[in-house]
Amino acid sequence: MADLILDTLKPSVAALAAPLVDHLVANATTLRLGISRSPCGARLVDAGIAARGGLEAGRRIAEICLGGLGSVSLSTSGRFPRWGTMVTVTTADPVIACLGSQYAGWSLAEGDFFALGSGPARALWAKEALFEELGYRDSTDNACLVLEVDRMPPDVLVARIAEECGIAPAKLTLILTPTSSLAGTVQIVARVLEVALHKAHALHFPLDRVVDGIGASPLPPPAPDFVAAMGRTNDATLYGGDVQLFVTGPESEARELAEGLPSSSSRDHGRTFAEIFTAYKGDFYAMDPMLFSPARVTVTALETGRSFTFGAFHDEILERSFA
Amino acid sequence: MADLILDTLKPSVAALAAPLVDHLVANATTLRLGISRSPCGARLVDAGIAARGGLEAGRRIAEICLGGLGSVSLSTSGRFPRWGTMVTVTTADPVIACLGSQYAGWSLAEGDFFALGSGPARALWAKEALFEELGYRDSTDNACLVLEVDRMPPDVLVARIAEECGIAPAKLTLILTPTSSLAGTVQIVARVLEVALHKAHALHFPLDRVVDGIGASPLPPPAPDFVAAMGRTNDATLYGGDVQLFVTGPESEARELAEGLPSSSSRDHGRTFAEIFTAYKGDFYAMDPMLFSPARVTVTALETGRSFTFGAFHDEILERSFA
Amino acid sequence: MADLILDTLKPSVAALAAPLVDHLVANATTLRLGISRSPCGARLVDAGIAARGGLEAGRRIAEICLGGLGSVSLSTSGRFPRWGTMVTVTTADPVIACLGSQYAGWSLAEGDFFALGSGPARALWAKEALFEELGYRDSTDNACLVLEVDRMPPDVLVARIAEECGIAPAKLTLILTPTSSLAGTVQIVARVLEVALHKAHALHFPLDRVVDGIGASPLPPPAPDFVAAMGRTNDATLYGGDVQLFVTGPESEARELAEGLPSSSSRDHGRTFAEIFTAYKGDFYAMDPMLFSPARVTVTALETGRSFTFGAFHDEILERSFA
Repeated sequence: MADLILDTLKPSVAALAAPLVDHLVANATTLRLGISRSPCGARLVDAGIAARGGLEAGRRIAEICLGGLGSVSLSTSGRFPRWGTMVTVTTADPVIACLGSQYAGWSLAEGDFFALGSGPARALWAKEALFEELGYRDSTDNACLVLEVDRMPPDVLVARIAEECGIAPAKLTLILTPTSSLAGTVQIVARVLEVALHKAHALHFPLDRVVDGIGASPLPPPAPDFVAAMGRTNDATLYGGDVQLFVTGPESEARELAEGLPSSSSRDHGRTFAEIFTAYKGDFYAMDPMLFSPARVTVTALETGRSFTFGAFHDEILERSFA
Repeated sequence: MADLILDTLKPSVAALAAPLVDHLVANATTLRLGISRSPCGARLVDAGIAARGGLEAGRRIAEICLGGLGSVSLSTSGRFPRWGTMVTVTTADPVIACLGSQYAGWSLAEGDFFALGSGPARALWAKEALFEELGYRDSTDNACLVLEVDRMPPDVLVARIAEECGIAPAKLTLILTPTSSLAGTVQIVARVLEVALHKAHALHFPLDRVVDGIGASPLPPPAPDFVAAMGRTNDATLYGGDVQLFVTGPESEARELAEGLPSSSSRDHGRTFAEIFTAYKGDFYAMDPMLFSPARVTVTALETGRSFTFGAFHDEILERSFA
Repeated sequence: MADLILDTLKPSVAALAAPLVDHLVANATTLRLGISRSPCGARLVDAGIAARGGLEAGRRIAEICLGGLGSVSLSTSGRFPRWGTMVTVTTADPVIACLGSQYAGWSLAEGDFFALGSGPARALWAKEALFEELGYRDSTDNACLVLEVDRMPPDVLVARIAEECGIAPAKLTLILTPTSSLAGTVQIVARVLEVALHKAHALHFPLDRVVDGIGASPLPPPAPDFVAAMGRTNDATLYGGDVQLFVTGPESEARELAEGLPSSSSRDHGRTFAEIFTAYKGDFYAMDPMLFSPARVTVTALETGRSFTFGAFHDEILERSFA
């Protein structure tokens, strides 16, 4: 594989994730995952529907979702007095790892089943406009997609995913992580860096100028209710997330990016996700899309070495959301 | 091994730990461990008697002790101003890892030699009442046991351990970590999650309702005196330990568990281990067994998503104990 | 390799680092490294000259520089409010890892090219006086040297390095990390433990009495200007670095070491590196060499178990230096 990688200009997220997926499946008992084959032959990994899963399963799934280009670790910090476990994300190549693989950008629907696909298979499909801007697509004979769902996907959809990726169904692995599950919680919160990069993109910052980044969020407790669970995983980032980006180009643009990135730049900032969602009568699309970003962002302009920090942590909002 | 694991209902702690044990032995020079064979043929790993060992040796031994199901990491935190190094423990399956393997539940005696055995071999022996409650026992042809001792065990005892495990002596590895050693310090402090689970069991909380957990403790400096060393490693947990458990079942029972778990629920709370030990004139069994638990515990009821936090950190007691 | 290691008294830093170097090169695309061969056949790894490199590349290079004996991790801490990413360093054998390998002790010059070499190859050359005191030298057929430079080394120098190591040029790998690069920043800051050991040596503390250690520093942002970059990576250690050493011998000598070690014991303490450098009109050698040490040091006397902490963190100086 090493030679293959050396011969290409950009890493293959599917090829880098493949051994991690195999390892996950081989350790299914240990990680309390359910492994099955769908009728069309795809491998299904249940990480929290009928199976228990857990934090460690979620950590590994997050690294798969980053296309094998990232590292996700749990450690202990004194930053938030009550919520001491921090999820830290680093990558070898943040834009490819987070936007080329981890971002939940593939909209999948079949009947009343709806899901947003994330992970390496997106780069095989590569039909999102984002891929053209990234100048990146992947090409391998196997792939993995992560779905944040609480039931098994219809097989006709599974077969279609394989087809759209141009691979045999037997070469497709779908990992299913409910929003309310422990594994789901970790793998969602591990998107803190991706959320910053996605908003940087929405703010029209040229992605090829993002050289590196690191992100961290507190680990929220899961909630059984879907909206509450979605709320907590979002609030972890919105009010507890910390991201540092290292960018090229003029210092003034780095400053502008830092000022625009944190969640505090949004009109909806200051309430928990669930409170805002309720205020908008459950209309997700009425929420300000610019809200979805880390609480605090530091942008370092590599050209001059100056760093700009905007936003702040909001322990009291985390407390309201998590407890 | 992957297939073997997939075919069983629960992971084999001995099989999962075996490659870690081999790796430890292969890196004996690097980790400053002494490797020898006992007369009956068992492999002895000296991690702090005549050999120096070290923090990293202790970290790896802790992961072996968790039956290959856990991860132990050292990182830096601002929680305790002077004692910044935190030992964080996560597992893929906390009850099997901590109670089925890591707990020091095998009482071993021969002449004036006494030790409590911990680690994967316990699950082969499986004569503790706990194993019946866990509905778990392991079955392999090799095993590893960790003994917190400062001298080599008598060979007749070594042979008996192998026999009780139903394996050949040559297939048994004993890892010896004195309480006063650096390796011993790390591997004891890495029991912070196990201590919480053990007390949950003592409080009659059904273990099959503990889905996941994470624990962290500050790293105490070793002490040459046995009682002082035992005191510091205990105080690290009693006054600096932090555990979060994720449980199923009624919210009220999660709350009750959280209230009962921290060391503050004990009558002996508030003094260092050494102070209490002296007050009881060195009678360990006069100490309140309910003292042995983390300083602070958060229990999250997965059924409702509510979290309950009880207990607190006591930096001034840590200072008195560690310095 | 395991057998080889078991047969020697001390670990071979070059042999332990070799698989890490191969892994780095195999993942060159992923880590955004430039790989080439010099005219004489040595392998050159560009980690920040023409290639982008990154934090993760720097982390791996730091572990190579520690001779495969150390672990370098990035995690999140609340210690410094704005600079939350901490680089933590642990080793299996601190003196060999840090002084036998990581210390930048090999002075290399050819024409106007000057560099200090660090990493495993130093132990093959082993001409520094330090190696005699360590009673250590390495012997293998391949080696790796890290150079903190911003241009390719002259090939005549490359060939000479191989010759001095007694290996074929094709068996030599040079890793090039500019001070201003992201990879360079991480690998320099990961020297926090080495800096403490080097000063302990300068204070004439017997190195064989240092049993273990752990170090942590905040991650500074890179600066494009060489002096500013060198200043920040130094200030991270001088005003944010934290080291704990575990030593044998009399308690009084442990206390004396702890008192002498921190940067606060230097006459130049209190100003940023750049401010001091300017005050001395750019004469590096006019600076107090005793300045170069961590902000805070704890020394634990294993003989008595007492710990001595001296020095303090200086967030406001870090802010002046980093921002």
